[in-house]
Amino acid sequence: MATKLWQKDYPLDQRIADFTVGRDRELDLELAPFDILGSIAHVTMLEEVRLIDGPAARRCKEKLRELYPLARNGQFAIEDGVEDVHSQVELMLTRALGDDGKKIHSGRSRNDQVLVDLRLYFRHRIQGIVEQTEELSRTLTELSEEHHDKLIPGYTHLQIAMVSSFGLWFGAYGEALIDDLRLWKAAYDSVDQNPLGSAAGYGSSFPLDRDRTTELLGFREPVVNVVAAQMGRGKTELTVAFAIAGLAQTVGKMAMDVCLYSSQNFGFLQLPDDLTTGSSIMPHKKNPDVFELLRGRCNLLQTLPAQMAQLTGNLPSGYHRDFQLLKEAIFPALDQLEDGLAIALYALPRTRVRAQSLPTDPRYTYLYSVEAVNKLVLEGVTFRDAYVQVGKDIENGTFVPPTELKHTHLGSLGNLGNDRIAQKRKAVMEGFNFDRSEQALHALTRKGGERL
Amino acid sequence: MATKLWQKDYPLDQRIADFTVGRDRELDLELAPFDILGSIAHVTMLEEVRLIDGPAARRCKEKLRELYPLARNGQFAIEDGVEDVHSQVELMLTRALGDDGKKIHSGRSRNDQVLVDLRLYFRHRIQGIVEQTEELSRTLTELSEEHHDKLIPGYTHLQIAMVSSFGLWFGAYGEALIDDLRLWKAAYDSVDQNPLGSAAGYGSSFPLDRDRTTELLGFREPVVNVVAAQMGRGKTELTVAFAIAGLAQTVGKMAMDVCLYSSQNFGFLQLPDDLTTGSSIMPHKKNPDVFELLRGRCNLLQTLPAQMAQLTGNLPSGYHRDFQLLKEAIFPALDQLEDGLAIALYALPRTRVRAQSLPTDPRYTYLYSVEAVNKLVLEGVTFRDAYVQVGKDIENGTFVPPTELKHTHLGSLGNLGNDRIAQKRKAVMEGFNFDRSEQALHALTRKGGERL
Amino acid sequence: MATKLWQKDYPLDQRIADFTVGRDRELDLELAPFDILGSIAHVTMLEEVRLIDGPAARRCKEKLRELYPLARNGQFAIEDGVEDVHSQVELMLTRALGDDGKKIHSGRSRNDQVLVDLRLYFRHRIQGIVEQTEELSRTLTELSEEHHDKLIPGYTHLQIAMVSSFGLWFGAYGEALIDDLRLWKAAYDSVDQNPLGSAAGYGSSFPLDRDRTTELLGFREPVVNVVAAQMGRGKTELTVAFAIAGLAQTVGKMAMDVCLYSSQNFGFLQLPDDLTTGSSIMPHKKNPDVFELLRGRCNLLQTLPAQMAQLTGNLPSGYHRDFQLLKEAIFPALDQLEDGLAIALYALPRTRVRAQSLPTDPRYTYLYSVEAVNKLVLEGVTFRDAYVQVGKDIENGTFVPPTELKHTHLGSLGNLGNDRIAQKRKAVMEGFNFDRSEQALHALTRKGGERL
Amino acid sequence: MATKLWQKDYPLDQRIADFTVGRDRELDLELAPFDILGSIAHVTMLEEVRLIDGPAARRCKEKLRELYPLARNGQFAIEDGVEDVHSQVELMLTRALGDDGKKIHSGRSRNDQVLVDLRLYFRHRIQGIVEQTEELSRTLTELSEEHHDKLIPGYTHLQIAMVSSFGLWFGAYGEALIDDLRLWKAAYDSVDQNPLGSAAGYGSSFPLDRDRTTELLGFREPVVNVVAAQMGRGKTELTVAFAIAGLAQTVGKMAMDVCLYSSQNFGFLQLPDDLTTGSSIMPHKKNPDVFELLRGRCNLLQTLPAQMAQLTGNLPSGYHRDFQLLKEAIFPALDQLEDGLAIALYALPRTRVRAQSLPTDPRYTYLYSVEAVNKLVLEGVTFRDAYVQVGKDIENGTFVPPTELKHTHLGSLGNLGNDRIAQKRKAVMEGFNFDRSEQALHALTRKGGERL
Repeated sequence: MATKLWQKDYPLDQRIADFTVGRDRELDLELAPFDILGSIAHVTMLEEVRLIDGPAARRCKEKLRELYPLARNGQFAIEDGVEDVHSQVELMLTRALGDDGKKIHSGRSRNDQVLVDLRLYFRHRIQGIVEQTEELSRTLTELSEEHHDKLIPGYTHLQIAMVSSFGLWFGAYGEALIDDLRLWKAAYDSVDQNPLGSAAGYGSSFPLDRDRTTELLGFREPVVNVVAAQMGRGKTELTVAFAIAGLAQTVGKMAMDVCLYSSQNFGFLQLPDDLTTGSSIMPHKKNPDVFELLRGRCNLLQTLPAQMAQLTGNLPSGYHRDFQLLKEAIFPALDQLEDGLAIALYALPRTRVRAQSLPTDPRYTYLYSVEAVNKLVLEGVTFRDAYVQVGKDIENGTFVPPTELKHTHLGSLGNLGNDRIAQKRKAVMEGFNFDRSEQALHALTRKGGERL
Repeated sequence: MATKLWQKDYPLDQRIADFTVGRDRELDLELAPFDILGSIAHVTMLEEVRLIDGPAARRCKEKLRELYPLARNGQFAIEDGVEDVHSQVELMLTRALGDDGKKIHSGRSRNDQVLVDLRLYFRHRIQGIVEQTEELSRTLTELSEEHHDKLIPGYTHLQIAMVSSFGLWFGAYGEALIDDLRLWKAAYDSVDQNPLGSAAGYGSSFPLDRDRTTELLGFREPVVNVVAAQMGRGKTELTVAFAIAGLAQTVGKMAMDVCLYSSQNFGFLQLPDDLTTGSSIMPHKKNPDVFELLRGRCNLLQTLPAQMAQLTGNLPSGYHRDFQLLKEAIFPALDQLEDGLAIALYALPRTRVRAQSLPTDPRYTYLYSVEAVNKLVLEGVTFRDAYVQVGKDIENGTFVPPTELKHTHLGSLGNLGNDRIAQKRKAVMEGFNFDRSEQALHALTRKGGERL
Repeated sequence: MATKLWQKDYPLDQRIADFTVGRDRELDLELAPFDILGSIAHVTMLEEVRLIDGPAARRCKEKLRELYPLARNGQFAIEDGVEDVHSQVELMLTRALGDDGKKIHSGRSRNDQVLVDLRLYFRHRIQGIVEQTEELSRTLTELSEEHHDKLIPGYTHLQIAMVSSFGLWFGAYGEALIDDLRLWKAAYDSVDQNPLGSAAGYGSSFPLDRDRTTELLGFREPVVNVVAAQMGRGKTELTVAFAIAGLAQTVGKMAMDVCLYSSQNFGFLQLPDDLTTGSSIMPHKKNPDVFELLRGRCNLLQTLPAQMAQLTGNLPSGYHRDFQLLKEAIFPALDQLEDGLAIALYALPRTRVRAQSLPTDPRYTYLYSVEAVNKLVLEGVTFRDAYVQVGKDIENGTFVPPTELKHTHLGSLGNLGNDRIAQKRKAVMEGFNFDRSEQALHALTRKGGERL
Repeated sequence: MATKLWQKDYPLDQRIADFTVGRDRELDLELAPFDILGSIAHVTMLEEVRLIDGPAARRCKEKLRELYPLARNGQFAIEDGVEDVHSQVELMLTRALGDDGKKIHSGRSRNDQVLVDLRLYFRHRIQGIVEQTEELSRTLTELSEEHHDKLIPGYTHLQIAMVSSFGLWFGAYGEALIDDLRLWKAAYDSVDQNPLGSAAGYGSSFPLDRDRTTELLGFREPVVNVVAAQMGRGKTELTVAFAIAGLAQTVGKMAMDVCLYSSQNFGFLQLPDDLTTGSSIMPHKKNPDVFELLRGRCNLLQTLPAQMAQLTGNLPSGYHRDFQLLKEAIFPALDQLEDGLAIALYALPRTRVRAQSLPTDPRYTYLYSVEAVNKLVLEGVTFRDAYVQVGKDIENGTFVPPTELKHTHLGSLGNLGNDRIAQKRKAVMEGFNFDRSEQALHALTRKGGERL
């Protein structure tokens, strides 16, 4: 056990330092590359508006471009006694360049520095998750095609209802994920606006060129109003949290289905041995722990909006230190979501699908009752009368299920419509414009690249 | 007090009926017009694919078009003993048309009926809220222009920080609301897909033309997979809940600012008497109850995603009756949000703005410290050294605030950028395509209009 | 549809009134009897400390005692234009008694009036729920005894694990509810403290005797500090919300079990027809809607702490109008919880229990694997080696389940320990002291009774 | 950045292992001492019921007692490839004792092992938090006495209302914390029941003596029903989460008050320099970051019940692997709460209190309006008429505040009642019985001690 703040032998002044720094030193490492990018853009602009002289700007940019690959590769550390990533970068600049290193803080505050870091960071993470989600959606569509003819019962109220199939089941999740991407699009569009230049939330008397840093960092447009830029803190995280929670709901429901369908009482899915775990007392157990943990993880991720809302609720406008805690809630959530998607991508294609002999299993006979009703209707009986007649057959034990299924309409058993779903997925993905931001950041980290 | 289920004299069988019907009879009235629209589209399609004969279809449509204005004007009631709106509409058709009225249930279940009702309903409500939000954003931008030169302190950590203005404050909320519209766009795009034809969640053996009902109801496209259509229940509500919660966060924060700024300790805002209430024991009180209630309401609305998530969490795919309860959480929330927006639209322009004499108020002198630092920097001192020098002046009591403010960059005190914000708002609003759906529904309710 | 605040033809000043009154007129009716009780106690004390003369006090008490049974029986209304229950009671007094009626507001504010009303109301509601919960716990223990020998599979990870029984299943919920009662005890003890005399949250310069009103209203003790009394608003509701949410978790889990066990894939429980509902398209369906709605309701109730926390989070001390909204979240929740408990009490004894033939059902054979391991251990094999040996038998298909079960330890299949559970329940119930408060309120409403 | 599961070069089988183990290796270290205690009790009982022979039992206990101080002092590690703490302890026993080490798993499963570990762990942590909370309450009562005569405005609706004091303000929080202790009592009583012997949730065919392990581990009583014991997982955590959230609400509100009162617009509190932080651009800033972080932390802690509820909602009875994630939500929360309490205990006595000159500050004149009304009432005017008269004086600018305050009733400005609050605190603390459990565990870890 590590020494804790509340233990008697913990030095009192260290308590305050540790309580305020919290997990920042660790979490800020995630921001380091983006902090450097923001600084390159800022110093480039400062030079152009003549707030820093050419040679100093050049030296700053050179040094920052040296640091960038280190930050990306995890070879960057926040030293003991240094409070956060912004101070660490400035310290390294000042060590290398002396007074020139101090100049880049003109027209900037740690407030808008962290704002720009976070937006660049979220933009990057959203891209990763969107690409994984698209891949998972495609994989599910493929599994739908592969298993299109394997029948299972469809349930309503957890009661057997009508005939379904693995084609429908996999395909449904493939399509559902596309709606999750729409929320990520809203999050991306909110994030993709430049807050740099808002300083401590009230702007600056320096003649900053905010459109220029917007262009350099590949943002679609600036957050115009400087108070709005500051208010984005908390709001941005909330919006990303919504996207996380929405996607988690879909993946969590799928995991619940897998756990249920793996039970001996269903037996529709069988996980390979490397995806199950045993019991310390029951030699026969093969438990679907991976999907249970995926389900549980998705449930925890669904509480993220409540965490963001409770943290920011009733705080008036302007920066508050409480916002620091947003990071420790949302940064791990992004990792966990990506891990969960990776696990789903790994496990689903390896899961064995066991089609059921529906008409011959006495538990499942009544699945065909609607087919029997519909057959009568197509023979001219009104729906309501056919319903009553089949109901009586069931009551009397004289019901005989029809042997044939003819589902032909779009999205049904016999016509899954996966091509239509693929088109839909493509249309949503085209709404994202990851190229612009990637190209801008690439230019920024190349020598002289920012001039392009 | 009404008799309660748990009271001893409550008849036992009535308990079950009341517990299961819950608030449905009341809430379903909201769905009545949309249920009728769905039925017109369904019967039109049924006739086209020859599942219902022309004369029967015509009579059904005529009767439904008669009922439609009644449902819109609140002249529609769900009778005692009738379980829900779907049964009521069918009952009225059957009363009027006999067996013909029963035919419209072919190829349809109450499950996809309520799905289509809900999506039409949400589409309608979203349009209303989006238009109100745009209006509020515009109003705030106008107030920003009107009060652009009235200074107030800007705070960080609730400590005075730098000079701000009502131009910045109003303008910030005007811009923040635009990001909220992005979430509504995602919700609208998720909602605007046709679930009709999914029946009980597993499709139908009738040769339904789902693209045709999609067109008739003005949906952008169908939810393709029928299991996905059913899974949209709960998910659709969650997505709308995110949009509600996001908007509520912005409005709630604004209300908190108003309450704080109306306090005697700030005195930046003064509410007109008709927007305040008194105390039963303190004759001097003028309390900002309207904004407190707006703040509280927005906080409750922010818990909506948690309600949706808890209700649907860990439920496997397929319909569950639990979903009925989604309505009683989200329908009133939409009303409350609209009421809140209406109140904000009414109250904000009536609120008196009291500019502060910042340089002469001893509480506010240090607001100008950054200006003093920046002035030194523009004279050639490095930022960090200027910071130290001004810090010493403050420590020694020799600090003299500069008399002039020169904030010129985009989005700052002297250059609010409200025109840029207006452009941004316009771009987001153009993403909504309310016309298509309005025209389709209009055609559907005119005699023969569905053929257009 | 009722006219809404945001509709164009809604008069503007009426908007403000309706927005601030909200649902208070309706919800305050629940508080009316308690408001009258608080007034009787207050006026009794005022007379004793000579802040009101004897005849005026007597007339006030007489009138209040006339109103009390009307308020209890729902024959009390808040008139149009009257803001809340406190104003209505004072209005009725003033109408009857003229100036004497005005005197009872001395040394009191609507703030502490609503505080005392709420605490009396919660005390009353808690008693009702605690008694229902005890009854449900007892019923479950009885069902456990009745079905003690009916075996079902026990699951871990939703995989069959070891032999269980309805004796264990019913008995478990009977015991779990006892822990829920502990939270109700904490809530009761927090509630059972007198806030009267705190006025607007800062006390009074009148020489109030707060111990005397404490005694008259049957409170255990006063909230001493007047600022603490005011801070109890929100906190009291949060504590009650915890108790609600805790109980809802237990009942909701039981409802989930019932829904699952009623599925054809389990078939352990069969609901009687009057507890199921049908489908509009599937003639064979008998759906467990009652338990699904109970589950869903319990899930919504579990979000109540989040609603209370979001509403009150970051509000500084002192009254805020936001607190009004606490009522509309928690009052219906208490009704819904009581309804849910009533439904569970009604439905569980009517549910048919279907014991399973575990050893002969091939799905369930492996339930006995631990028994086989334990048998070897009792024969002298180490646990780990016995585990390996039985595991091999299962792998090779040579596993034969033992025919006998010998579970004898406390709380197991063969020794359910329901008498011990009954003792535990009794001990927890004895912690509540409902008699003191009942007797005090009874005395207060009898002529001259308060002197006892 | 550490390598992440979703990175391309992450070995696939390692993904599964890392995803399922999660943070268990780290979190389980907290459980190690309690796991050893559970094992000592279990093996003691096994010997007594002759399921393990005396010499083997003795060797096991000796080895476990050797390991115990290591586990307490953090000198215990879970080795690579070992899944959890239970496996690690068993491994160390087996290494030391060979086959004898394997015997202690008889009649036990990892399911009830972790249940007993968690309940011992929570019992321990609850004791720590309860003692800290009592200390904080006492400290606040002392500060109330120290500053009893320093006046500040009291607010309602954030508007100045009536005269208050630091005596009232500190004292109120001192009393409020006592109600928080009631919830901790409910949590403690729920936790303090022995689940050992429930095995995988369905008991054992071994003749276990569950009352004996109850006594050995110092539990008040057993969870009787074995299915109830398993159902305690999730429920126990939820109950502890309620206690955490309740306490966090009180502490968070106090932190909000401190932040607000430290603002220049209030100026009631001044934090010492070592409790403030500066700004990177504003040389004058002294920000109350410590209290902002305390407030934010308390807000996050308030979302814990929602996390527990979402994770466990709709899971049927029986163990699910999802429960593993409960630990990673609640273990850090307990640390954070203790840190927050430690910080409050450190910071509050160091905070400078600045009494306000209320009658002479024009912002605060009207604070005395109720005093003026009450003075008229004591002179014989009815309350309502006095209210109108003072209201008119205020309206006309002729209001003169009374110079004297006479608040004498219990809990008011002039009679804080801190002795009564101390009695209340004492009574609640006496409900906890920490001695019994401490003595039992102490006996268990001494050689031969378990026989006492």
